[in-house]
Amino acid sequence: MRGTIIHGPRDVRLEERPDPTIVDPTDAVIRTVAACVCGSDLWRYRGIQEVTRPTPIGHEYVGVVEEVGPAVTSVRPGQFVVGGFLTSDNTCPVCRAGAHANCQHGGGYDGCQAELIRVRNADGTLLATPEQPSEDLVPSLLALSDVMCTGWHAAVCADVRPGGTVVVVGDGAVGLSGVLAAAELGAGRIIAMSRHADRQAIAREFGATDVVAERGDAGVEAVKELTNGIGADSVLECVGTDESVVQALRSARPGGMVGWVGVPHVTDLPQEHMFWKNVGLRGGPAPVRAYLPDLLQRVWDRGIDPGKVFDLTLPLSEVAEAYAAMDERRAIKALLRP
Amino acid sequence: MRGTIIHGPRDVRLEERPDPTIVDPTDAVIRTVAACVCGSDLWRYRGIQEVTRPTPIGHEYVGVVEEVGPAVTSVRPGQFVVGGFLTSDNTCPVCRAGAHANCQHGGGYDGCQAELIRVRNADGTLLATPEQPSEDLVPSLLALSDVMCTGWHAAVCADVRPGGTVVVVGDGAVGLSGVLAAAELGAGRIIAMSRHADRQAIAREFGATDVVAERGDAGVEAVKELTNGIGADSVLECVGTDESVVQALRSARPGGMVGWVGVPHVTDLPQEHMFWKNVGLRGGPAPVRAYLPDLLQRVWDRGIDPGKVFDLTLPLSEVAEAYAAMDERRAIKALLRP
Repeated sequence: MRGTIIHGPRDVRLEERPDPTIVDPTDAVIRTVAACVCGSDLWRYRGIQEVTRPTPIGHEYVGVVEEVGPAVTSVRPGQFVVGGFLTSDNTCPVCRAGAHANCQHGGGYDGCQAELIRVRNADGTLLATPEQPSEDLVPSLLALSDVMCTGWHAAVCADVRPGGTVVVVGDGAVGLSGVLAAAELGAGRIIAMSRHADRQAIAREFGATDVVAERGDAGVEAVKELTNGIGADSVLECVGTDESVVQALRSARPGGMVGWVGVPHVTDLPQEHMFWKNVGLRGGPAPVRAYLPDLLQRVWDRGIDPGKVFDLTLPLSEVAEAYAAMDERRAIKALLRP
Repeated sequence: MRGTIIHGPRDVRLEERPDPTIVDPTDAVIRTVAACVCGSDLWRYRGIQEVTRPTPIGHEYVGVVEEVGPAVTSVRPGQFVVGGFLTSDNTCPVCRAGAHANCQHGGGYDGCQAELIRVRNADGTLLATPEQPSEDLVPSLLALSDVMCTGWHAAVCADVRPGGTVVVVGDGAVGLSGVLAAAELGAGRIIAMSRHADRQAIAREFGATDVVAERGDAGVEAVKELTNGIGADSVLECVGTDESVVQALRSARPGGMVGWVGVPHVTDLPQEHMFWKNVGLRGGPAPVRAYLPDLLQRVWDRGIDPGKVFDLTLPLSEVAEAYAAMDERRAIKALLRP
C-alpha cells in the first residue's frame, strides 16, 4: 500500500509500504476513505519538532473495515467507521472516567495518511456509522476524528452553557470547530477572534455572533466591550502560544473558564492573574471516543456540518501539496482521498 | 472602641481606635460578636509580607447591626449578620455572574479584629440570620465569613460530584472545611492529606473516609492506591506552596480537576502535566456572598458544624496570644470574643 512518510522539514512523500496486518486480537485494519493533515503535523514539517528518521505520519481518518482480529466484537468488515487521533480501550478506569485521550492502553498510529491503517483497540476506538454514508457526509465524519472533537473539548472544558458568552481564540480548523461546538452547546454570544475574511465567513456560518480582528491588549478590550465590560464566561484557547494563552486568560471574566486545546508552547502561565481573577484553565488532548456517539449522530442527522473546515481536497498522491498549502496558509485544512 | 493593629512581625496589639461611622449611604456599622485570625493574617505576622506601618487587621466577623446608612434596605439595626472577607455589591455584572470576590465595587475592611466594624456595600455583603442565634451556633456562623466558604469554593472549583473521589491537600482550617464541603456535595471517597492526629480527627468527623500522612511522591502514590490507580476526580488545594500545588495536580486523575484556594506562592505551574494529563485548575478568593444563603441555612438547620475548626477561644484582649498560638501551631484557628 502507499503511505505518507515525513523525511524532514518540508519533505513529505507518499511511498510504498508493507500492508498493515492484524497483530493483536483487538486490532482492526481499515481501508482509508479519507484522511487529512493536522496543524500539529506541521510542527515537524516546519522543523519546529525534529524528525530524526523517516516516519509515517497522520492521525485522522475515516474508512471501511477491511479485517478485524478475533477479539473485536463491535465493528465488522465492510462497515464505515470513524476513529479518534489516539486509540482507547474504552474500558480502563481512565476511559470510564471519560478521559479517553489518556487511556491506560491507548496510543497512536503508524501513519494514517495512507491507504490502509492498523487500528489497535478497535472496539474502544472505532464507531461505525448506521449505514454507508453518502459522499457529502464524508468530510464531516472525518472532522470527528480530531478537529471537531477537539473544538468540542475546548467548549466543554471552558464550561460553555446555554446563553453564555464565549470567546474563541484561534481561527484555524480547531478554532472554527470550537465556534460550532459553542453554538451547539447553546452559547448566547460567540466572539471569534479572526483576521482572515474566509475564516470569519466560516465562523459566522458556524454560529459566531461577533468577529474581533484585534489581538493582544486591543483584542481583550474589544472582547470586554462586547461582554458587559467584564470578559466572557468561557474562552476557547485553540492556538497554544504564549500570546494566545495569555490573551485567552485575560479575555475571561472573573470566575470564567478557559478551555485549552492548542498544544501549549508557553513559557509561564500567569498564575497570579488566574488565581486573583478566579479564572480557571482546563483542557488537553480531546477524549474523542467520549464525544463520538453524540457528535456522529449530529452529523448523521445533518444537524452540524463540521466538514466545512476542509477547503482543499486532494488525492493522497498530492500529500506534499496538502502540507505546503496549509503551511503557506493557502488552505485551512486539507482533505486527502486515496 | 478597641481594635487590633499589626505593627510588624510578631507584634499585634489591641489598641483604642476611633469608632467607625456611616460614611457612605450603603454602609453599615456592626458590633462584633466574634472575629478570628486567618492563616493569611500570619503572613504579615511572620514577616513574609511586609508591614510598612501600623495597620488594622482581620477580615472575618459576625455581629449585630448597630447602624445602617440611608440606602441600606436588607439589614436593620439589631439583626445578627454574617459578612464575607471581602465586601460585594451583589449587583454588578461580576457579582451577577457569581464571582463576588471580584466585585467591581468590592473591597476589604479597616480591621475586623475589633469591637466595631464598618461594612461597605452592606446590602450586597451581609446576610442576617432568621433570628438571634443561640450561643453554640456562633462559631459555625463565624466560619462562614471565610474559611467554610473558601473550602466550599475549593470543592466547587474542583467539580466535586456525588459519588466522586476527592483529595484534600492541607489540613488547616480551610482544608478541613474543604473536607466538610466535599462531604456535603456528596463525594463518595474523601482522602484527607494530614499528619496531625487532632486534625485527622476533625477531618474524619467532617466526612473524610481516608487519611494519608505521606507527602510528595509518596503522598501521590498513596492517593493512587486508593483511587483505582489513577488519582482522584477532584483535588482541593488548600495550602498554596510549590510543593502542595504540584502534589495536588499530580493527585488528580487524567481529566480531573484541582480547585485551588491556598493563595499561591508558586514559582511555575507544571503546564505540560496539566495539558497532557487533562488536569484542570480553577479557584481563587471565594465568592462568599454567592454561597452564604445556602451555607447559612445548613448551619441554621444544624446540618453542618463548620465551627469545629476553632479549637481556641480567647477574649479579644488576648489577640496577641491568638496569633502566637496559630503561628506555633498550638491552635488550628483562634476565635476572638470582644
